[in-house]
Amino acid sequence: MTTSTPPVGTVDAPQAARSTPAEARQRFREGLVAPTTGWAAGFTQANMVMLPQDWAFDMLLFGQRNPQPVPLLDVTDPGATASRLAPDADLRTDVPRYRVWRDGELVAEPTDVSDLWRDDLVTFLIGCSFSFETALMAAQVPIRHIEQGRNVSMYMTNLDCQPAGRLSGPLVVSMRPVPARQVVTAVQVTERMPEVHGAPVHVGAPEALGIADVSTPDYGDPVRFEDGDVPVFWACGVTPQAALMASKPPFAITHAPGHMFVTDIPDTVYRRH
Amino acid sequence: MTTSTPPVGTVDAPQAARSTPAEARQRFREGLVAPTTGWAAGFTQANMVMLPQDWAFDMLLFGQRNPQPVPLLDVTDPGATASRLAPDADLRTDVPRYRVWRDGELVAEPTDVSDLWRDDLVTFLIGCSFSFETALMAAQVPIRHIEQGRNVSMYMTNLDCQPAGRLSGPLVVSMRPVPARQVVTAVQVTERMPEVHGAPVHVGAPEALGIADVSTPDYGDPVRFEDGDVPVFWACGVTPQAALMASKPPFAITHAPGHMFVTDIPDTVYRRH
Repeated sequence: MTTSTPPVGTVDAPQAARSTPAEARQRFREGLVAPTTGWAAGFTQANMVMLPQDWAFDMLLFGQRNPQPVPLLDVTDPGATASRLAPDADLRTDVPRYRVWRDGELVAEPTDVSDLWRDDLVTFLIGCSFSFETALMAAQVPIRHIEQGRNVSMYMTNLDCQPAGRLSGPLVVSMRPVPARQVVTAVQVTERMPEVHGAPVHVGAPEALGIADVSTPDYGDPVRFEDGDVPVFWACGVTPQAALMASKPPFAITHAPGHMFVTDIPDTVYRRH
Repeated sequence: MTTSTPPVGTVDAPQAARSTPAEARQRFREGLVAPTTGWAAGFTQANMVMLPQDWAFDMLLFGQRNPQPVPLLDVTDPGATASRLAPDADLRTDVPRYRVWRDGELVAEPTDVSDLWRDDLVTFLIGCSFSFETALMAAQVPIRHIEQGRNVSMYMTNLDCQPAGRLSGPLVVSMRPVPARQVVTAVQVTERMPEVHGAPVHVGAPEALGIADVSTPDYGDPVRFEDGDVPVFWACGVTPQAALMASKPPFAITHAPGHMFVTDIPDTVYRRH
């Protein structure tokens, strides 16, 4: 009996979900470029920011002061290419798509950053809402953007994060339409997961966050409301990228939105009871 | 009707408990030297570490990697003399007794560090078990060292903290004798307060932590067990001082054990439900 490996880019959804974190990372390392939603079901995926050591204190302080948008799951030593969340991974190759930033401008979106690597880079791995979406679905709260096969809607708000040194920027939020009778459940489920953004920051009234029209998100896709749905807003891991754009460090690398770092840590580790 | 202010050093316990955080800090600023246990009842007190900016990244990372012994409640900008936990305070004068460290050696215990102040000092305010002791007493769990009018017993363990840059050192724990039938309650109450050390790290069997004799603590006082009491160990805010001793940064200032920084934040803010 032989097992054939499908060519890069042709993995199907059940197969992606069944893959182990190590298998998923290997596919991405070998060149597969795909959003990571649905991959290695049950394992935590992380937002990623890499900054030179000169800026690392500011970023670490930014996370300490803004734990809802920037929940730090791991911070590496300078130059380290692996994380304790995935000791066998290579942080330079295992994210399906990266973003390279110079002076706050997005200059490239490579699939490998080995050639850009510097021994003074500190990597920040930051909790991601994929973890709490699994928990919401387990609690029977529908996730409209998944039902509709879209990326989640994300918005810049008129709220400022607490600045830290040279880093400052707006709070970015993700929005999920939630049936009104399940809003309380959505709060209860997500507040138990503070390492992956925790409870919503806002329910209803997008204009109070400076969002004029929920149907035109700043990042991601528009998502359709069903009758009786209420917009619920959570702090979003794109917030550090907004801070990089606003604060313009000379050099930074991040993941590309939706193309996360897959860790070996089960989502349940970040769920309090 | 006139109100007389008692002279420095002659405050009684109910008066201390009734003082506001600002009143308590003013007394310490004016020269009162006393342990802060029992002062400004219901408000959070904090362990304190001040380090030059050159070492601040390592300390911040040490806290990020060791959240049980080093739960960071606030980290200031370099040179800042106040904290958002007490905007009207002066961090250089409002702790009743400080410790000054040079190359890991304790060199002085002044009551004011204004003359040692440097514009590159970053202050770390770290959660303190006083906060969870209030919650334990509210849950009818007796606190033996308070009943006996003593300081809590603290011990170096044979467990290492996760190192961070140049900082490393042993986990320091505090120990409270808890009636066996209330050990579960003690776990349940304190796990809801992760910002103030959270759940115990160990129950029973001190030898498993490398503690040969609980009656001879490394810091604080010996505390008498009642019949049926079990030793319960929590991560302790003295851990950063042990790391300073082990890692020998050229300069640091901390609070003296038991002489904490009194914040304006109610303990209930750090209690999850």
